[in-house]
Amino acid sequence: MKLLIGNKCYSSWSLRAWLLLAAKEISFEEVLVLLDEPGFKDAVHAHAPQSGGTVPTLVDGDVAVWETLAIVEYLHERFPERGIWPSDAAARAHARAVSSEMHASFQALRGACPMNLGKRYATRDRGADVTANVTRISAIWGEARRRFGEAAGGPFLYGEFSAADAMFAPVVARLDTYAIPVDGVSAAYMRAVLGLPAYRQWLDAALKESWIVEHDEVDEPAIANLRSV
Amino acid sequence: MKLLIGNKCYSSWSLRAWLLLAAKEISFEEVLVLLDEPGFKDAVHAHAPQSGGTVPTLVDGDVAVWETLAIVEYLHERFPERGIWPSDAAARAHARAVSSEMHASFQALRGACPMNLGKRYATRDRGADVTANVTRISAIWGEARRRFGEAAGGPFLYGEFSAADAMFAPVVARLDTYAIPVDGVSAAYMRAVLGLPAYRQWLDAALKESWIVEHDEVDEPAIANLRSV
Repeated sequence: MKLLIGNKCYSSWSLRAWLLLAAKEISFEEVLVLLDEPGFKDAVHAHAPQSGGTVPTLVDGDVAVWETLAIVEYLHERFPERGIWPSDAAARAHARAVSSEMHASFQALRGACPMNLGKRYATRDRGADVTANVTRISAIWGEARRRFGEAAGGPFLYGEFSAADAMFAPVVARLDTYAIPVDGVSAAYMRAVLGLPAYRQWLDAALKESWIVEHDEVDEPAIANLRSV
Repeated sequence: MKLLIGNKCYSSWSLRAWLLLAAKEISFEEVLVLLDEPGFKDAVHAHAPQSGGTVPTLVDGDVAVWETLAIVEYLHERFPERGIWPSDAAARAHARAVSSEMHASFQALRGACPMNLGKRYATRDRGADVTANVTRISAIWGEARRRFGEAAGGPFLYGEFSAADAMFAPVVARLDTYAIPVDGVSAAYMRAVLGLPAYRQWLDAALKESWIVEHDEVDEPAIANLRSV
């Protein structure tokens, strides 16, 4: 299997699919396609002609799967023993609902705070819509932990690491990068994600990248630059 | 099982879940919650306290599933014999990818042409972004039909009606309502969806509704008003 991804410093969707594969110890070849370069779509199509031309795209023999949630369901079917989703049916339904909500929501947070693993910014007011997004995200995390995660054991939303954690990993990264205040349950959950060996591995590679994607660099002074560019 | 939906004339997400249940002959109780009324979220939570407070929400005993794609996967697991997704693995991967793409894309079309089953509008230029959306949608439909649907038999994207058709049904409705030009393959596919008995049943009920949702009424003269309001 081959996973097409974008720059690790910025590509939040790529992180989701990559992290799930890596954390679940599914072996795959990684192919990095530079975001925002002319010919990006052609480069994706060179590896996956019958895909949507976006990253991430998973190529498994003749099958090309684009769209992160479709990749997740493909892996769930292909590797049923890996715990891609929680094994309990009610937890799994909840995990899919919040993952789908993640997929198409939180535009204010995503717009104001692009994923950028190479910088750190000071806490500041980023507007009511961002705050509302963070409140909803914290509520989701709190409810998942309270209803499912705590009883199941393990520090992730549903106990063991699952696709839902992969879906929220770039949100965890954003809340960390932009120093956004969160409640204690969310802070503990963030520590679990940020400490995951697969996440550290992605982050280490991201910090070695030298590409700058201008529209993901916010117009405010960083309090730290973690890369040498 | 109980499905919480919004007004049938306007609630495109509700149509998706409802149509899948109805077309697959899964019995359920329907509960209509008026969109844009004060107390909407409270009304949803009265039926499904542990949900996201949106429509559609599926309530099955203790489990409340919100988010349409999560409802689809829940039904796929609960009724494995109904063909919620195509049975062929490659077709199923493709169906999930295009359904996920539908879930978070085509904002220009969705913004300019809200689902409104009660009106018909004249063909007009609605901007380059809308045209680009329609081009991509036609490409998806064409590829699904060519690679999977035609060989499988049946007029839908993957042959028999599946969740992917439910996901695109409100798009079919929009292209029809706003008289947007499409190619022959798309036109044939649209006829199949618009002629589906379950779709006709939803439409008949929609046309009996008297509620107006102002922000889904575009600012241009209708060429036909199919309701008596």
